[in-house]
Amino acid sequence: MARTRLTPEREGELYEAVLDLLREVGYDALTMDAVASRTRSSKATLYRQWGSKPELVVKALRHGKPVSLSDIDTGSLRGDFHAALSRTDDCQMEKDAALMRGLSHAVHENPELLQALRELLIEPEMTGLDQLLQRAVDRGELRPDNPALKYIPHMLVGALAARQLIEDRPLDQAFLMDYVDAVILPALGV
Amino acid sequence: MARTRLTPEREGELYEAVLDLLREVGYDALTMDAVASRTRSSKATLYRQWGSKPELVVKALRHGKPVSLSDIDTGSLRGDFHAALSRTDDCQMEKDAALMRGLSHAVHENPELLQALRELLIEPEMTGLDQLLQRAVDRGELRPDNPALKYIPHMLVGALAARQLIEDRPLDQAFLMDYVDAVILPALGV
Repeated sequence: MARTRLTPEREGELYEAVLDLLREVGYDALTMDAVASRTRSSKATLYRQWGSKPELVVKALRHGKPVSLSDIDTGSLRGDFHAALSRTDDCQMEKDAALMRGLSHAVHENPELLQALRELLIEPEMTGLDQLLQRAVDRGELRPDNPALKYIPHMLVGALAARQLIEDRPLDQAFLMDYVDAVILPALGV
Repeated sequence: MARTRLTPEREGELYEAVLDLLREVGYDALTMDAVASRTRSSKATLYRQWGSKPELVVKALRHGKPVSLSDIDTGSLRGDFHAALSRTDDCQMEKDAALMRGLSHAVHENPELLQALRELLIEPEMTGLDQLLQRAVDRGELRPDNPALKYIPHMLVGALAARQLIEDRPLDQAFLMDYVDAVILPALGV
């Protein structure tokens, strides 16, 4: 069967509509019917293009982050981390955090959503992070056997989760940059 | 009105029943009726003793952790952290993690639950942690101006959340002790 390709603009519109719906109603209440109706497309198109709701949702989440971490190369690990954070302004961070709150429960109830998140969002970010770290090792900034290396995702997830849960404050660049300087770089011995 | 005090045994039974119900049905579906029926007590007693569902739930969560961090004093910060982790065996950690998963969504929907968690569980633990850290400062192990000090909760929350979300593995003592040695102590310059 010939597959009609969507234009990048149309694809972008669909992803934005999915993200809006996610923020409005959450993952569980987001249906392919609602996406089809909001975007004036057919459910058949949605399923042909994305296969399933978890995949569509994760692709939509990934849509906002087109540049991979591995493309960042400022010449120092600290510069790379700060450059990565500079890409997302505070308003966007709060919108991302709202999405993540909406997904945090759904992830536990929907193994296929967690699987799609791992494959499409977490793994690519981890690969980009590995390349960024490898360059720091190559420059002699970072020891490849540093025991904190495998825990960078844990440190980052903690910053996001505890900021809201314990501090009751929104995520912002200044906080995350301070966390990188106070926690992540010292743990890495940089 | 004279207030009938529950015996500590009876109070413990009630808390265990609340925790069982939380694991079985989650926070939203847990009702005071269900607790009353499961424990063969009256709703009036439950409300008189605990005031509200969030308070009862958080007191029940706190019940399993009677010893405060501040009572731990092994003579070194590493010893204190490891001693704190040794108190909870792997089976109990998994049960605690299941509870936390059940609460993570409810916390965002129920501000009064988050408030009770902060006041009754998070704040006391933070106070205990502060005392444990103060002793490390007094011994000269830890600089009081270390910028990672304020981020210890973030580092800990990250260990708990990312272990399950990213690694898809259960929490256990060996992982948390390695995380303390690889991340928390180096970030603190210890």
